[in-house]
Amino acid sequence: METNDRDSRHKARMVRKKAVIDEKIEQANQEKGLLLILTGNGKGKSSSAFGMVARSLGHGMRVGVAQFIKGRSDTGEEAFFRQHPAVTWHVLGEGFTWNTQDRQRDTETAMRGWQIVAGMLQDPAIQLVVLDELTYTFKYGYLDEQMVLDAIAKRPPMQHVVITGRGASEALRNAADTVSELMDVKHAWRAGIKAQAGIDL
Amino acid sequence: METNDRDSRHKARMVRKKAVIDEKIEQANQEKGLLLILTGNGKGKSSSAFGMVARSLGHGMRVGVAQFIKGRSDTGEEAFFRQHPAVTWHVLGEGFTWNTQDRQRDTETAMRGWQIVAGMLQDPAIQLVVLDELTYTFKYGYLDEQMVLDAIAKRPPMQHVVITGRGASEALRNAADTVSELMDVKHAWRAGIKAQAGIDL
Repeated sequence: METNDRDSRHKARMVRKKAVIDEKIEQANQEKGLLLILTGNGKGKSSSAFGMVARSLGHGMRVGVAQFIKGRSDTGEEAFFRQHPAVTWHVLGEGFTWNTQDRQRDTETAMRGWQIVAGMLQDPAIQLVVLDELTYTFKYGYLDEQMVLDAIAKRPPMQHVVITGRGASEALRNAADTVSELMDVKHAWRAGIKAQAGIDL
Repeated sequence: METNDRDSRHKARMVRKKAVIDEKIEQANQEKGLLLILTGNGKGKSSSAFGMVARSLGHGMRVGVAQFIKGRSDTGEEAFFRQHPAVTWHVLGEGFTWNTQDRQRDTETAMRGWQIVAGMLQDPAIQLVVLDELTYTFKYGYLDEQMVLDAIAKRPPMQHVVITGRGASEALRNAADTVSELMDVKHAWRAGIKAQAGIDL
């Protein structure tokens, strides 16, 4: 009896939910390339971008990836995706900026990297461009943010761009179609657990 | 002159940052399988889990994926990863719960799926287990959360588990090593933009 009640309440609730969602899907009818920002201090920003790379490849799309700043300690995704014929992968940073400690050299590296990215942002054959850890180049003044925003605004209309990194600016958030902020609620590293291959600790 | 000042402040700051990070790496020396939760209303939770799948495959690891509840509208990641010899992929839901509107049937489906997951959680050859959208099975009472937590606690010691879905409970957060909460700051869908292949709108 109680189960039947719960079942019929569940059904009524799901009927209402379906109506709301169907209406939203109906209203969402604009197709265009999206700018998506993954920011915040939580873990999983780059992983999320690489999950979208996998998804796009599953749809037969071409993908360009540029990794800025961070000489990532875990390069499993690079090893995995680089071999795929539809992926172009560029590592543009030279290790952690707190390893190089040389702002002039880092700026030159970032500007060389930017030339490559600017090319991808003009190529309609590349349907998804991932700019991993791009925000740090603005924070440390390696790249001019307005220059980057201008290039993104002028990209091919159906090209998607995903930008990751902490501390996305107001200007970047305003330009974006979708912004997800990852909050660091609990972090294994603080409990003394070592970074391990594969997992985004 | 001003540039030189900025450069030397940058260098000093990066030297301090390197010291802090090196010390943290030094202290983090425990190796074990991690339980990672990706929750919150923002976009990118499942994408983040699938990025970790790519990373793990890049390290030659074996991966098991179970997708609960959601008959995803975008199945690009399934198309992409299913063909990989080191991936076992199970779709355990039968479409959105607001499409089926039948709690009894959904509960039976979830319990059948759970048998498969329980097997993966006892197999040390599977180094990463992704339980995508698992939290909804607790919310709607399809699976008993304590039963799932017990199985996770008894898994092989080096196996990583990633759980995604909105509304992760306190019990799940307490059991986890790392919890990232994705906040929905801005969402293209609300601006009338249609869901599009590849991108996690």
